[in-house]
Amino acid sequence: MIPKSHPRYESLMMREKISEGVKKGLVHETGMIAHGRGEAFDYLLGEKTIPPADNAAVAAAAYLRKAKNAVISVNGNVAVLSARECIELAEAANAKIEVNLFHRTEGRVKKLVEFMENKGGSNILGMGADARIPGLEHDRGKCSAEGIYSADVVLVPLEDGDRCEALKKMGKKVITIDLNPLSRTARTADVTIVDNVVRAIPNIMDKMKEEHDWDEIMKNWDNKKCLQECMAHITRRLSSYEF
Amino acid sequence: MIPKSHPRYESLMMREKISEGVKKGLVHETGMIAHGRGEAFDYLLGEKTIPPADNAAVAAAAYLRKAKNAVISVNGNVAVLSARECIELAEAANAKIEVNLFHRTEGRVKKLVEFMENKGGSNILGMGADARIPGLEHDRGKCSAEGIYSADVVLVPLEDGDRCEALKKMGKKVITIDLNPLSRTARTADVTIVDNVVRAIPNIMDKMKEEHDWDEIMKNWDNKKCLQECMAHITRRLSSYEF
Repeated sequence: MIPKSHPRYESLMMREKISEGVKKGLVHETGMIAHGRGEAFDYLLGEKTIPPADNAAVAAAAYLRKAKNAVISVNGNVAVLSARECIELAEAANAKIEVNLFHRTEGRVKKLVEFMENKGGSNILGMGADARIPGLEHDRGKCSAEGIYSADVVLVPLEDGDRCEALKKMGKKVITIDLNPLSRTARTADVTIVDNVVRAIPNIMDKMKEEHDWDEIMKNWDNKKCLQECMAHITRRLSSYEF
Repeated sequence: MIPKSHPRYESLMMREKISEGVKKGLVHETGMIAHGRGEAFDYLLGEKTIPPADNAAVAAAAYLRKAKNAVISVNGNVAVLSARECIELAEAANAKIEVNLFHRTEGRVKKLVEFMENKGGSNILGMGADARIPGLEHDRGKCSAEGIYSADVVLVPLEDGDRCEALKKMGKKVITIDLNPLSRTARTADVTIVDNVVRAIPNIMDKMKEEHDWDEIMKNWDNKKCLQECMAHITRRLSSYEF
């Protein structure tokens, strides 16, 4: 039991959820290593949403609002950390949810679809994947024809670099959430939110409710500049550290 | 199978060893999350030994050479990543090896002692711990009377902050290897090598063979300054990144 007063309560609770997710077969074991990497980068951000990530959330909201067929791709880590938030965002954005796994097994897809349904989701896609993302080896390319395959905008939080590139090559607009601003995924996506998924998803939802000139935001969005601002923020923060 | 030509071969092999270690019951599952954090920080270092970490390895060599009863504390992650290197360093430094675990179970201690023996180690301490590190709750404080308890110098790679502080309070000289220069362990130890354990341990051994004025090195060692230099190195590196 972690007391709520613990200074790193949120972080320790997330770790607990990932660890339990592995035990329940929802999270692939390497998802724990990925989570650890995320913890380190979140630590460098100060475990809060930094201003350039907040701007990226506005851009993500713009792409979701203007999408014709938006899909939120959910893997094990995303599900155990923020199932409810994904479901709420999907409702707000009129988007579909697809369980799509890097280390795909039909058993784990089924468990995650059920998990998302138990959290209140409906029509969760992912089972019996009937289409393929070109350029990816067999299991990693599987997806749903009415989901990711035909989507114009995909939100892929915590995505692998190869898969992010393959989605881009299909002509989709790709929004990602990645705590590492240097990752290939971060550099490949159209909109990269350098933030923890548990903060970023509710934040996108908040931004969707605001009034903005969404076309203007999309027109002016410079993802590379945003990543540079994230790096500048991190290095400024580290440079000011007092030992 | 990871091809040797892969640009991140070493890193992926380490991940594989940790993952296998969990399956064999040598590594606690949260060791995977800790490893992921390490991966992220190693990535920030460029996955190589930076100059201030090289200086810290010289200081570590000095303390080990001048020790009366040096002990190398080995946990699951350290064992699966660098068992042989720890055994060789212990021989070179005339140090003992003790298996000492944060998430202690007698079964895992036994497995790790056997693992170290299979790797060529002898007289590996840790079983039937008969002493306690004051100030730590029951299982976390257990240690061996002829090992950590009575040591004047302890090398604790990948150590927890509370335990590092408790060892310092016992009056020991503490050498740690920690990829995060901001961690409590890093800031508490007498000598902090901000490097990957697989590079740092052979490096200490190399330094031990060099000729140095060891007393002078110990007298002049400034760990805080070293940590500041590590941070400066990381921030310089991040600032120069081209998107």
